Amino acid sequence: MTDPTAIKALTFDTFGTVVDWRSSIVRDFAAFGEKRKLDVDWVSFVDEWKTAYRPGMEAVRTGAAPWMTVDAIYREKLEALLPRYGLNGLTEVEKTYLNQAWHRLDAWPDAPAGLSRLKQRYVISPLSNGDVSCLVNMAKHARLPWDLILCAEIFCHYKPDAEVYLGAVRLLGCKPHEVMMVAAHNYDLRAARSHGMRTAFVARPTEYGPDQKTDLRAEEEWDIVARDFGELADVLGV
Amino acid sequence: MTDPTAIKALTFDTFGTVVDWRSSIVRDFAAFGEKRKLDVDWVSFVDEWKTAYRPGMEAVRTGAAPWMTVDAIYREKLEALLPRYGLNGLTEVEKTYLNQAWHRLDAWPDAPAGLSRLKQRYVISPLSNGDVSCLVNMAKHARLPWDLILCAEIFCHYKPDAEVYLGAVRLLGCKPHEVMMVAAHNYDLRAARSHGMRTAFVARPTEYGPDQKTDLRAEEEWDIVARDFGELADVLGV
Repeated sequence: MTDPTAIKALTFDTFGTVVDWRSSIVRDFAAFGEKRKLDVDWVSFVDEWKTAYRPGMEAVRTGAAPWMTVDAIYREKLEALLPRYGLNGLTEVEKTYLNQAWHRLDAWPDAPAGLSRLKQRYVISPLSNGDVSCLVNMAKHARLPWDLILCAEIFCHYKPDAEVYLGAVRLLGCKPHEVMMVAAHNYDLRAARSHGMRTAFVARPTEYGPDQKTDLRAEEEWDIVARDFGELADVLGV
Repeated sequence: MTDPTAIKALTFDTFGTVVDWRSSIVRDFAAFGEKRKLDVDWVSFVDEWKTAYRPGMEAVRTGAAPWMTVDAIYREKLEALLPRYGLNGLTEVEKTYLNQAWHRLDAWPDAPAGLSRLKQRYVISPLSNGDVSCLVNMAKHARLPWDLILCAEIFCHYKPDAEVYLGAVRLLGCKPHEVMMVAAHNYDLRAARSHGMRTAFVARPTEYGPDQKTDLRAEEEWDIVARDFGELADVLGV
């Protein structure tokens, strides 16, 4: 284990690690559909919608597409999905509302209290591929007490590009080993570690629903492996 | 008056507007000096130190110097001032401590409570020429409940460059007229207004000490002119 007092800041992957995007959006869309008496399989809709994320970012990362926010990536996919699910004739206001479901995600139950504890000693920030406004709105909605918002949009690079990790370390005024990346995804910690950051893994085995196959456990010897943010705070002695 | 419900975010100049840098640093340095039995005129020291700020930034703004953080600008000046005030032989740790006095500033008495009220309805952020780490540390020290940290360092441009105001508006996911700049300095509001932002002036007539001559009052018809952040919240109906 790394020395907890040598760490100054904790940066958190957000979608999946801090917030439960899948259940939140399914719930959000089901409520939207119920008011309008729509009969839609929202679970499939959301799972299909989410598939836009990785190729959208990869296109930016490889240079195949210019910089594009995650909001824009999801909006493009939303427009394609709506008619396929029989959702025609939505107004611009309704489509914007649906697209901003990513701004209204609920936290995993342990996250707000765990973050509040960690904030007492550390600077805490998301380090997410989500957009600034999304993360700000989400923090207000889900009561996430961030000290600041760091994310891909600030650097015009998506994780796992080096620019995101090293950019965060620089803006935090820290050395890489003074910053601990917290994530439910092994790839994210691998990248953070390759740049000298400390790492903490918190499994979120139902992020992708009951049949999740990936990231069920730590795939390397991360500095900390914790069950949830409460245990992370315990291990760090906060 | 602009419609308060059309505003989504408030961005605040910080040094002078939110925190009382001059009294805070004089107090901080006097305590440092007392422990070491140093006899120094800290008021002159701080006033002279502060003169580094504008030319340092102007050099960056005009392209005469490459991007340089405010911490670096002040550090350069600190090195020049120390021997002139008879402060020789300070360790690196002590010099870093002194330079980071800007991270330990106290808020004007009305600021924390006023910001907490405003945060209930609006996204609140600094929009400062200070560095990210300085603003984060200051927020923890002075209990400033920012939703996020926006500042010059994120854009590698200093106010009043357009990139700072327009960059903040973009990252907030807003249109310019949905963001209100709050400042104790007329030049800052002039620039914000020129980019379509709303404006609020809060005078801080002792920012530069008892003989302050500038920014004692609103020099234009700003959208709001308030005595302090409490009155600003009142006017906005929060």
